Amino acid sequence: MTNAEQKIGYSFNDVTLLDEALTHSSYANEKKTQSNERLEFLGDSVLSIIISDYIFRKLSGVNEGDLTKYRATLVCEHSLAEIAKKISLGSLIKLGRGEEMTGGRERASIISDAFEAVLAAIYLDGGIGAARRWLLNLMEEAVEETLTGKNYDDYKTMLQELVQKGNSGKVTYRIIAETGLDHDKKFEVEVMIDGVVCNKGIGQSKKEAEQRAARIAYENIKKR
Amino acid sequence: MTNAEQKIGYSFNDVTLLDEALTHSSYANEKKTQSNERLEFLGDSVLSIIISDYIFRKLSGVNEGDLTKYRATLVCEHSLAEIAKKISLGSLIKLGRGEEMTGGRERASIISDAFEAVLAAIYLDGGIGAARRWLLNLMEEAVEETLTGKNYDDYKTMLQELVQKGNSGKVTYRIIAETGLDHDKKFEVEVMIDGVVCNKGIGQSKKEAEQRAARIAYENIKKR
Repeated sequence: MTNAEQKIGYSFNDVTLLDEALTHSSYANEKKTQSNERLEFLGDSVLSIIISDYIFRKLSGVNEGDLTKYRATLVCEHSLAEIAKKISLGSLIKLGRGEEMTGGRERASIISDAFEAVLAAIYLDGGIGAARRWLLNLMEEAVEETLTGKNYDDYKTMLQELVQKGNSGKVTYRIIAETGLDHDKKFEVEVMIDGVVCNKGIGQSKKEAEQRAARIAYENIKKR
Repeated sequence: MTNAEQKIGYSFNDVTLLDEALTHSSYANEKKTQSNERLEFLGDSVLSIIISDYIFRKLSGVNEGDLTKYRATLVCEHSLAEIAKKISLGSLIKLGRGEEMTGGRERASIISDAFEAVLAAIYLDGGIGAARRWLLNLMEEAVEETLTGKNYDDYKTMLQELVQKGNSGKVTYRIIAETGLDHDKKFEVEVMIDGVVCNKGIGQSKKEAEQRAARIAYENIKKR
């Protein structure tokens, strides 16, 4: 086993797959070699079927709306980058000089993309069963936390982190409406970045409304 | 084999899975039973991994950007509803009375959702191999057409169909700029719905610019 295989915790039949999975496009451009972007394309779907299958079977009484939310939380960049820390994935990625100098090795997007690429490499090497065992072993804790609600509502934190990365400043929330009777209250909250209103969220509690506003703002910023 | 199994072309070990896959939420609400929405959640990922795996292996020289486009074309509602016609899926879906009366049986969204649910039912019944054989057998032609470009640029048609469903009227295109020399031309086109400008597209040919404008308009309308 190579050092990379040891850290990742999977022994490849074809170790060139792992090599490709760890090659960021910035390095591939410098060395005129294949980047991990094709594997990332495949890994995205491998991740989705494994997580979807797992939560579909585990949560037999849960409707598709909530299943979709659980899946979105589990497969998001933030979540994958956290998991990837367990196997020190950042330290294994081959980066170009520019990316290395500007802190690419710590960037959640680069790490989570490489994580998906490694998952695809294992899938191609050992099939869906091998990919499932490897992934669920690493994600078990995050899955449990998400399903029990501990990891469910993390958009406020994710938005804060995203805004800080973009060198913008402060994220604040303000209640703009509170309607309904005690047993059926509705809160409307707006989220501001550096004092500029970005989005609104509605919920049955202040926290829920804030999380929803944060989620919309987060997703909008990610799309740009 | 039941009639439904014959039409669909798959013999279930557990035919209640098929029954669930064919139950639209409008019917489930009326009869207080389980709709196909959970299966559709799972089917979405099953579809994605089968198509992604297929085009990843088949198109070894194609970059992830184009792979993503091919996948998007193949898994879109329009494409799935077309495939579903081959097995007369619309006629097998259990609909509530309201949906039946308002033409739900012909609606692409209802048919494509049921198609994904049937795929998930086969996946749960026979595993990923059974799901893959069933899907690729049905989609082979569409996949070939997409990969050879015949089915690649269908956003103009899709937009036209979508606009007609929404009871809006005419989709038109207008070239607003043409720049560059002969070997490196760029066209900028705007798409209008009932004379109102919606979106712009840029491309190396008029057709490409129109398709891109149509695609943006199509995706924006779908999001609403």
